[in-house]
Amino acid sequence: MTTGAEALVRTAVQAGVEVCFANPGTTELSLVVALDSVPGIRAVLGLFEGVCTGAADGYARMAGKPALTLTHLGPGFANGIANVHNARRARVPLVNLIGDHTTWHVQADSPLTSDIESLARPVSDWVRSAGSAEHLGRDMAEAVAAARSAGGRIATLIVPSDCAWGEAKGTASPCEPEPAAFVESRRVDAVAELLRAGKPCSLLLGPAATHGAGLAAAGRISAATGCKLWCDTSPTRMERGAGHPVVDKIPYFPEQAVPMLANFAHLVVAGTRAPVAFFGYPGQPSSLVPESCKVHELASPDEDVVGALEALADAVGASGRDVSGAQLQVPERPTGTLDPRALGTALAAVLPEGTIVMDEGVTSGLPYWLASPGCPPHDYLQNTGGAIGQGLPSATGAAIACPERPVLALQADGSGAYTPQALWTQAREGLNVTTILCANRAYRILQIELQRAGVAEPGPKARSFIDLSGPELDWVALARGFGVPGARVETADDLVRELERALAEPGPHLIEAIL
Amino acid sequence: MTTGAEALVRTAVQAGVEVCFANPGTTELSLVVALDSVPGIRAVLGLFEGVCTGAADGYARMAGKPALTLTHLGPGFANGIANVHNARRARVPLVNLIGDHTTWHVQADSPLTSDIESLARPVSDWVRSAGSAEHLGRDMAEAVAAARSAGGRIATLIVPSDCAWGEAKGTASPCEPEPAAFVESRRVDAVAELLRAGKPCSLLLGPAATHGAGLAAAGRISAATGCKLWCDTSPTRMERGAGHPVVDKIPYFPEQAVPMLANFAHLVVAGTRAPVAFFGYPGQPSSLVPESCKVHELASPDEDVVGALEALADAVGASGRDVSGAQLQVPERPTGTLDPRALGTALAAVLPEGTIVMDEGVTSGLPYWLASPGCPPHDYLQNTGGAIGQGLPSATGAAIACPERPVLALQADGSGAYTPQALWTQAREGLNVTTILCANRAYRILQIELQRAGVAEPGPKARSFIDLSGPELDWVALARGFGVPGARVETADDLVRELERALAEPGPHLIEAIL
Repeated sequence: MTTGAEALVRTAVQAGVEVCFANPGTTELSLVVALDSVPGIRAVLGLFEGVCTGAADGYARMAGKPALTLTHLGPGFANGIANVHNARRARVPLVNLIGDHTTWHVQADSPLTSDIESLARPVSDWVRSAGSAEHLGRDMAEAVAAARSAGGRIATLIVPSDCAWGEAKGTASPCEPEPAAFVESRRVDAVAELLRAGKPCSLLLGPAATHGAGLAAAGRISAATGCKLWCDTSPTRMERGAGHPVVDKIPYFPEQAVPMLANFAHLVVAGTRAPVAFFGYPGQPSSLVPESCKVHELASPDEDVVGALEALADAVGASGRDVSGAQLQVPERPTGTLDPRALGTALAAVLPEGTIVMDEGVTSGLPYWLASPGCPPHDYLQNTGGAIGQGLPSATGAAIACPERPVLALQADGSGAYTPQALWTQAREGLNVTTILCANRAYRILQIELQRAGVAEPGPKARSFIDLSGPELDWVALARGFGVPGARVETADDLVRELERALAEPGPHLIEAIL
Repeated sequence: MTTGAEALVRTAVQAGVEVCFANPGTTELSLVVALDSVPGIRAVLGLFEGVCTGAADGYARMAGKPALTLTHLGPGFANGIANVHNARRARVPLVNLIGDHTTWHVQADSPLTSDIESLARPVSDWVRSAGSAEHLGRDMAEAVAAARSAGGRIATLIVPSDCAWGEAKGTASPCEPEPAAFVESRRVDAVAELLRAGKPCSLLLGPAATHGAGLAAAGRISAATGCKLWCDTSPTRMERGAGHPVVDKIPYFPEQAVPMLANFAHLVVAGTRAPVAFFGYPGQPSSLVPESCKVHELASPDEDVVGALEALADAVGASGRDVSGAQLQVPERPTGTLDPRALGTALAAVLPEGTIVMDEGVTSGLPYWLASPGCPPHDYLQNTGGAIGQGLPSATGAAIACPERPVLALQADGSGAYTPQALWTQAREGLNVTTILCANRAYRILQIELQRAGVAEPGPKARSFIDLSGPELDWVALARGFGVPGARVETADDLVRELERALAEPGPHLIEAIL
């Protein structure tokens, strides 16, 4: 007999799924057994569900297709919600499998019972509770199709254990994902007209347009029309460095973003939404676009932004244009004092071609961004949803998607302490991830926000919520505890030396940079 | 001017709240500032929200009143959901404060926006989104009253940041909690008749009846009528040891629980629900009570079980009875090989009077339970909701509630790796918590469940999801990383020595016991 779980796994394999990031429990055991009986899916254990969901995000960004996450009932999934939230904001494809009690046991309200759908809905574009073993293959086919629709969506399939262990009808054929909607030429032509009109224009690129064909088309459009290229404050995946078009990030704080955008008469939005402030501040609008700058939508996030950009390149006569992109310009290796600027310079100075940089450096990350536009070509990923604790897991998933490429995790200490268990998965899987742990021993962004709110002298309790120095986290010890070799550096010279050593050796490393 | 946040904090203080376990972000800064400007609430930082909510659970169990948790928007709260789930199943009082975007910024759907209410509802008995600064004091008064109702409930108050920073009308007076409902004497008399009828009876005690006056009354009833005392499989808080009535836990697995209950003609349920299996297994019913055993409800979880038990003691003529309880009987210090049995014996052998034992030892915890009924009187706490990662946080909160008492965390490695950040809060606050880390390097319970499901030889992927030995977690390094001194022991003798040393020294310690 074929179980529902086997039909589900076989259907996933046929739909192109290759990896499952999991922390299963009793209700998921039939699915676990099926991963053995049906070959084709790599099983990766996370010691905490936030590692699994964050890894699936990083994997999807680099593989361009969904991984599975497999978690245990409502509370197990809840542990992964923050990073599903981030993945949803990244617009990547993801399929969450959540085991549930047998259908007839739910009424018993046993200790681990909860309303899983209510937990799943806020972070999912598609949610289904499976109703029978018979249709579990079809449920899976539809979940994968939903995840692959319109670029990337979050599909969550809740699987009662009797559906997993019951008898299935067989495998379901893969379903066609809903394609990104076509952008009419009228809209493209209107934008082309704008760009040719000679007023200062800028073009804001969404997640699908900051790499590959979309980015190339944007580069041609910019070269032909002089329009400035922007991306969201935290890009999902940007191809960057020598040869790639130069794209700037919309600044985080309104007082920086608004004046910047005030330099433009038009902002064309391509595959994302017009920029809004991360938070609502007293007396400031949500929008980061000043009234003097007019917003035009080339493509919504659900529309085919790559096609629209290619059509726009044609329309502005840029289709055959040769774009040289950024010049190769690698900074000198820094020496002496280690501060965020020296740290950023050091990373840029040693970055190998093809590196995947996962930046959850928060306030320590910006200097690297500024130092690295001329690095050898590489990929740059950021936390898109603002829920911290995404960096180490996503670096892990990216390394699984691209085993031949080095991964560099630029990681703040406060957010790193959310999901340090990702280091263990890196060690277990032997992944080439080098983590640069930026130890400033504070939630620095909150210090800045307190100042911005006019709190010149925070009281002792406010300070205690921001200061991480009592006791100091020993990240080399934490890394060792999770099986990853580590080193602590206090000068720029030492950082460069340890970086080069870590990048030369296979397997994960952690470098704690004292800032 | 008084801000909404200040009115909220002042109201909380007047309602008896003393501690806030927090990991705030930008949207909570006004609340953070108010904790400084209004004295009376201790501020305790957790490096991860699951630490905050688990600590609030442990605190509430020992303090008998709610702490606040303070978390950042939907994803921050989501990180704490698993331990709120456990706290709800423990029936303890808890008030979750969740910061939200300003009311006018929600429509901008900025990156950290999500449906917080949908996330909060599955783990909350009471949820409210505050609508104005003006009424924030009253909202808080009602939240605390809701949390204190009927023994203990979960109240979740969502606070948009403009409500926190806006002008309040002033403090609200504390509201009266809804008391546990009175149990009619008819029901008490019917149970009394049963107990006197001479058939084998057992009495199952819920969370409010396993300590204090409820437990004392149950002890008198048992002494007078010979009825056997049970508690839920995982008790919220049990007073145990010499002088206390002996109460057994309903076994976890149906094949053990059902035959045990088959020895009784009647099961009287007092302040909990009739026992059900943790999971639904093929061919087995949800209920753990065989048909031959009749269930009678003395008091539901919402009713005044302590009053009902005292009335029952009167009705069976046991009210003045002197109950000697368990005899003081401390096992010899074990020597030689370290296994779960030696570990349990070692803990029982050295346990100081008044210790709070937080047992998330899972499969390694049972031998301690069996070895310890004759220990000096102490409190025994377990993970009530089955969402692992509760032990280290709850031990932390219990130590904050009872600074003068030693806390012993009996902790499995798999579940300990969920929320190891709790160790940092123990170090920061200088708490007297000794963690015994049971390192069997496996999710052993899943090995057992696979065997029970008939999977004699799990495949490589199933094994990889259960085996934690590659690489081995180094818990002494992890503890050091979080600022807690640690030691590794491999013999029973070494465990006893390190336990005595840890209990004699102030501050937290971790002992990694290799099993």
